[in-house]
Amino acid sequence: MKRGTRPWKMVRVEDKHFYEEEDEVAEEYPLTIVINGEEFATMVCTPMDLKELVVGFIASEGVIRTVHDLKDLTIDEDRGFAYVETKKDLKLKEFNTKRWIGSCCGKSRSFYFQNDASTARTVMDIYKICPDECMRVMAEFQNQSQMFKQTGGVHQAALAGGGEISVQFADIGRHNALDKLFGYLLLNNVENKKRIVIFSGRISSEVLLKVSKMRVGCLLSKSAPTNLALELARDLNITAVGFVRGNRMNIYTHPERIDLTEKGGADRERKGS
Amino acid sequence: MKRGTRPWKMVRVEDKHFYEEEDEVAEEYPLTIVINGEEFATMVCTPMDLKELVVGFIASEGVIRTVHDLKDLTIDEDRGFAYVETKKDLKLKEFNTKRWIGSCCGKSRSFYFQNDASTARTVMDIYKICPDECMRVMAEFQNQSQMFKQTGGVHQAALAGGGEISVQFADIGRHNALDKLFGYLLLNNVENKKRIVIFSGRISSEVLLKVSKMRVGCLLSKSAPTNLALELARDLNITAVGFVRGNRMNIYTHPERIDLTEKGGADRERKGS
Repeated sequence: MKRGTRPWKMVRVEDKHFYEEEDEVAEEYPLTIVINGEEFATMVCTPMDLKELVVGFIASEGVIRTVHDLKDLTIDEDRGFAYVETKKDLKLKEFNTKRWIGSCCGKSRSFYFQNDASTARTVMDIYKICPDECMRVMAEFQNQSQMFKQTGGVHQAALAGGGEISVQFADIGRHNALDKLFGYLLLNNVENKKRIVIFSGRISSEVLLKVSKMRVGCLLSKSAPTNLALELARDLNITAVGFVRGNRMNIYTHPERIDLTEKGGADRERKGS
Repeated sequence: MKRGTRPWKMVRVEDKHFYEEEDEVAEEYPLTIVINGEEFATMVCTPMDLKELVVGFIASEGVIRTVHDLKDLTIDEDRGFAYVETKKDLKLKEFNTKRWIGSCCGKSRSFYFQNDASTARTVMDIYKICPDECMRVMAEFQNQSQMFKQTGGVHQAALAGGGEISVQFADIGRHNALDKLFGYLLLNNVENKKRIVIFSGRISSEVLLKVSKMRVGCLLSKSAPTNLALELARDLNITAVGFVRGNRMNIYTHPERIDLTEKGGADRERKGS
């Protein structure tokens, strides 16, 4: 049994036949985060890399900005509780999800939560990546998704740079996989210049906001984007690339980070021959 | 332009060529639910079937049990607000997500939120379905997923009975698609005996709980389950079937609702010949 999976007896049906077999299924684990003695949130997650998850989640929510804002973090794995203490006294009610409609934020009107508007940042990092490199790191990303192959039930988030994956996290929760990556970057003070985030799921507004909080300028996904995510990507200066599959991909925003040389269309047959 | 999608100019890359094209992307729309004048939740969703979504969501959360508990429901589509008034005076703080650890609930220890423990029900509906029927309704389900084909970005939830899909909903949010289905069942007082819920995404604990709240005894998915979902399915008497693909499927819990006749394994070659 691997970490993050559990055996389960099941009946496999094929055509008119059935077979009693054992399957490995993804483990779903409830974790409650307590901040300065007060209950903050309960999430379900894959019980791996819990420290990274907690740090990434509370940074995403704007409770901390760097690991230096943390006084203590202890995790009770058996009972499913994480106890966070911060250096500053915090009023947790300020980090709620009250909708925030402001016209003076200087950012996209797509922000609908106050903590997002205060923690998301326009990415200033300028660099060029070849399409080849995007397709190569996506192929490596999918090879590394070992638990996904086994259980078919987890999302993956990775950081790539220089044509290679440097770190990759898995979770049954789409946002948790990204929070684990964010937590890792904060805990290890990882350089995020000229980097790429790769994500296994759809590019939604929440996914895009997490990438902007990591200050990474390029996001690759094998899936589709939403319009709200693309509006945010345009405003926050993030290159959003979807449907990266085989030798194809769609660049939805800021294509200036992708090194495009040969234009297709009418020229295609001439160049392709 | 279809409802629920938006056009977006993008650069399609294929091999070394690029093409400037327009794509249709899934629309992501923030909706804030206000109950008796108090803000309850903000969700992002596909802006279709909002009435069903709101009714299903607040029923899922235990705020209402039937549509008769509703006094009024108005939706301001332009501003993205839904105003709910209930007949009874409610303390919304009671419907929060405080973790609930009890040993006397008589149900699964997998319940971790109080509203789930109070609204989920053991399904008493006993019936038999042929594997053929499961595979046929899954094929129809995938054919009906028109918006998914176009944008690659939405989840689907449907109700089937008598070998046919009776109603199907789409949303970029996995839980929203199920809440729309639940809301539809409540608003239209739909018979749920001997029915099947079909879902496009993974079988997680939240998905399983929603099916139990709909009082439906069988859930089909083309994806994988989690262990927590399966523990709940076992305790709540729900037949959970995953990986329904082509002529194959895996029955994880309560196989007595599936009409299995020919056992495979050692007998397989004899019967298969």
